[in-house]
Amino acid sequence: MSDVTVRQIGEFGLIAALQEALPPEVKAGPALEIGIGDDCAVWRPPEGESVVVTTDSLVEGVHFRVDWTSWERLGHKTLAVNLSDLASMGAAPGIAVITLALTGRERIMDLIFFYRGLGALAKTAGTLIAGGDIVASPNATAFHVAALGSTRGGKMLLRSGARPGDVIAVSGTLGASAAGLEILRSGPGDHRRATATGPLLIDQHLAPQPRLALGEILLREGASAAMDLSDGLYGDLSKILVASGVSARVDEAAIPVAAAVRAHFPTDWLKLATRGGEDYELLFTAPPGVFRHIQAAADEIGATVTEIGEVTEGEKHDLIAVDADGAQRKVASGAFDHFHRPPTG
Amino acid sequence: MSDVTVRQIGEFGLIAALQEALPPEVKAGPALEIGIGDDCAVWRPPEGESVVVTTDSLVEGVHFRVDWTSWERLGHKTLAVNLSDLASMGAAPGIAVITLALTGRERIMDLIFFYRGLGALAKTAGTLIAGGDIVASPNATAFHVAALGSTRGGKMLLRSGARPGDVIAVSGTLGASAAGLEILRSGPGDHRRATATGPLLIDQHLAPQPRLALGEILLREGASAAMDLSDGLYGDLSKILVASGVSARVDEAAIPVAAAVRAHFPTDWLKLATRGGEDYELLFTAPPGVFRHIQAAADEIGATVTEIGEVTEGEKHDLIAVDADGAQRKVASGAFDHFHRPPTG
Repeated sequence: MSDVTVRQIGEFGLIAALQEALPPEVKAGPALEIGIGDDCAVWRPPEGESVVVTTDSLVEGVHFRVDWTSWERLGHKTLAVNLSDLASMGAAPGIAVITLALTGRERIMDLIFFYRGLGALAKTAGTLIAGGDIVASPNATAFHVAALGSTRGGKMLLRSGARPGDVIAVSGTLGASAAGLEILRSGPGDHRRATATGPLLIDQHLAPQPRLALGEILLREGASAAMDLSDGLYGDLSKILVASGVSARVDEAAIPVAAAVRAHFPTDWLKLATRGGEDYELLFTAPPGVFRHIQAAADEIGATVTEIGEVTEGEKHDLIAVDADGAQRKVASGAFDHFHRPPTG
Repeated sequence: MSDVTVRQIGEFGLIAALQEALPPEVKAGPALEIGIGDDCAVWRPPEGESVVVTTDSLVEGVHFRVDWTSWERLGHKTLAVNLSDLASMGAAPGIAVITLALTGRERIMDLIFFYRGLGALAKTAGTLIAGGDIVASPNATAFHVAALGSTRGGKMLLRSGARPGDVIAVSGTLGASAAGLEILRSGPGDHRRATATGPLLIDQHLAPQPRLALGEILLREGASAAMDLSDGLYGDLSKILVASGVSARVDEAAIPVAAAVRAHFPTDWLKLATRGGEDYELLFTAPPGVFRHIQAAADEIGATVTEIGEVTEGEKHDLIAVDADGAQRKVASGAFDHFHRPPTG
């Protein structure tokens, strides 16, 4: 069994095996009127709420390498990056549909572990898996997810609400995922793998956690703008500035960076934290009074949020970085282009 | 401009060009609270209705070949196969999100034509294009769509409602798409290309029409079960029989097959019509009285529906075909496996 491939078992055997791999709680629920098995899934969002939709993909050789990750973590990450988008809107997760684009050479056991990882996160996050599609893909395995959520009370967080005087803040720490990716890239002989913290950084890259509870707090307390950090702090913050028609000052000494990132990357840690990408933390803005409430509420759920700068006047969306010595410089928006991205894990 | 590739123009130039290619009516509407540009799209389905979700993909070398189709027809088909799933549920189309998985070698002009074809169908069908995602794909271009619709008055058509005594019927004619594919496969020298009808068959394959208005009629008039024909009549009908716990008798002489299919494929036309796939017509069941109402309503919108058999007792979901001479045989359910599918256009 352990070496049976998709081509050997066929599509219908695969579907049955994958359904089996999901926890029962994520396959059915009162809001899921029709789940896996008909032409479409049918889902009833909470009364009076709008539907929040996002789609995100993981492609072999571009977004993951099977020799760098486990299939279980890959399943987790495939759903996590979509739920992270819902979190950034303050949306409540509802259902997800999964498209598996398969070469046919994948081992059934690997895909079962993929579904176990995906299913475990779906269960924790309260997301139902409503079906999807299996298609043949000639050369590379890929996973495409569409995730649907609902606006809580009809409200949502956008990129466009940042106002001068607002605090700029981030959740968690930045740069750990990029640091983990660097360690993966440098190969199995990298000395950092043998340390206590190296594997933790790699895990941050391979199995990010969507910040759903924090997104709910941001919405409830009245954050003015939010997004999730997938393409690096400076590139992503620039998108908020453009959408909101404002400028910003970021205090680099205030950016939360894990000690392990600083220790393992003594010269590059700041670059990893500001340009690295795939943090899947939340970047948000809020009036100072609101920010203090957010901080208190985050503290209660064991999440951390850190003030890293201020929204300023200026429609040219200038991003000014202040370094540890107080020197100011203008930062290039440097929006991330996926056609110049090296393979990642 | 005409030879500029995705890699040359980059992701952000591409997004701007593609947005431009869409008609304004499909980019904004009162129900689309947040469209292209934020982390997620936000859509408000009609009050009291549930959300119908489907996802379908077209992968180069598996579902299309760029030397067989035009990019405009490819854009049309990519959306059409998703809308066809909504039609089969009787759902009203709402929004679609598109993931472009690109090698970077695609020409911008080709993708603009893809979006024009997709946008034209979206406009006709009343679907909003709410955004999506662009990801790098190492070897093959692929398109993944998630389409959302709403249940009309909270009602929907399922596969599971067929009852003994119901009429089995299909819309349009069957086999034309498979016939067009056969002509494409046999190459540019195929004599049927030079006929009046050969190119029409090819068009049926490359640019199928989703039967949205007919799906609405089926729901309103009370069809008992429905699905769209993507994998061939016999394979798809078997899915209704399994879901409904019934058996069926199909009168092969009654199956509507275009004269061109019979003429160009004198020995294979019935196989194309029953096993060919990609018809994207609707297959449905209905009590005889309801069927007559459906037929009258379909007639008013210029659609045809044809009775091809009857649902019978029997939980073993036997499918009995009666040939033109009255001889009966049991048909293998022969569900279609995507890992044994040759490349199509």
